[in-house]
Amino acid sequence: MSKGERTRERIISTAAPLFNRLGYGGATLADLMAATGLEKGGLYRHFASKEDIALAAFDHAARLHGDRIRSHVAAAGPLASARLVAIAEAIASLAVNPVVPGGCPLLNTAIESDDNEGPMYPALRTRARRAMTRLIGAVRDIIADGVTRGEFRKGIDAEAEASGVVSTLEGALMLTKLYDDPIHVRHAVDRVRDRADALVATSPSKSR
Amino acid sequence: MSKGERTRERIISTAAPLFNRLGYGGATLADLMAATGLEKGGLYRHFASKEDIALAAFDHAARLHGDRIRSHVAAAGPLASARLVAIAEAIASLAVNPVVPGGCPLLNTAIESDDNEGPMYPALRTRARRAMTRLIGAVRDIIADGVTRGEFRKGIDAEAEASGVVSTLEGALMLTKLYDDPIHVRHAVDRVRDRADALVATSPSKSR
Repeated sequence: MSKGERTRERIISTAAPLFNRLGYGGATLADLMAATGLEKGGLYRHFASKEDIALAAFDHAARLHGDRIRSHVAAAGPLASARLVAIAEAIASLAVNPVVPGGCPLLNTAIESDDNEGPMYPALRTRARRAMTRLIGAVRDIIADGVTRGEFRKGIDAEAEASGVVSTLEGALMLTKLYDDPIHVRHAVDRVRDRADALVATSPSKSR
Repeated sequence: MSKGERTRERIISTAAPLFNRLGYGGATLADLMAATGLEKGGLYRHFASKEDIALAAFDHAARLHGDRIRSHVAAAGPLASARLVAIAEAIASLAVNPVVPGGCPLLNTAIESDDNEGPMYPALRTRARRAMTRLIGAVRDIIADGVTRGEFRKGIDAEAEASGVVSTLEGALMLTKLYDDPIHVRHAVDRVRDRADALVATSPSKSR
């Protein structure tokens, strides 16, 4: 890696927590300069604009987020129910041990970009959607695989289940951050565990 | 209401959607001036600061939010399960028919204020917590009342259930806003309905 590439990487990893904590609109160029120790010209030697830094910072955070999810799921073994709980625990872990300070970058970016009209928001929204679609898809695939394996009962709407799992966990991350209390993500993991039990083909707790 | 009070109310109701859509940091004094048609001096005749307008705008949005919840619950009749679904539908309705344009003011304010250090954020965070505590408390009271009435089975952790219900719905609001697709809040209402069924004392779907 050249010195220029190293500087670029350092800017990205320094910018990512700033944007994740303060928002893309909230973190100013002055904040980026103070945190990196670079002048405006130094930043703009590596990036075309603040938007360009914001997008690279989101990509960085989303990649670490994906790595966290994958490592939890890989450690869970082959059972779909265990993999589902592992993905819940991976998302819950972001509340107490975030991949980038400031909580879940997907949630934060989704909320900030959904109604904002500034020039950098359409690209951020597109990226937040893409990362969220990957997350929902990972949950859906675990559930669909569980059905295929005969572990989960037939007829489950895996897409609807995945939407519910991700909603519960992301909403709980918001509550845990708001109150600075991990109880809400713990409750959410319990809910996903209950739901996984209810999906098991031989479970007595089928509600449908 | 005096002319001054009317102007103050008009500033608040004009500012609330700006802050809810663009964020408290994102909506500028220039945005407030453009939307209200008032000069800076006109705004500051009624409010001490932008923070002062932001807090009044949040209070306004949170009051409308509470009114929406209460009217749905009041129309649901006495059954706790019906009241629980009604509160879910009330929150879900914010995605397609918000009380203030820009989605759920509690969710938006929670996410923006949780890590932000600007001078207006501690007061906004306090208000977001207070409003969210009222919402979680309303869900908890419905569940606890269902247990007292014998409609729901004994031993339910009403506080944990309420955390799960609010997490699911607020997370689904985020997804619905991100994708501009009401399917996620519909799934969330279905989840709450399933959960209400599972809480019923005579239900065959007790998972615990």
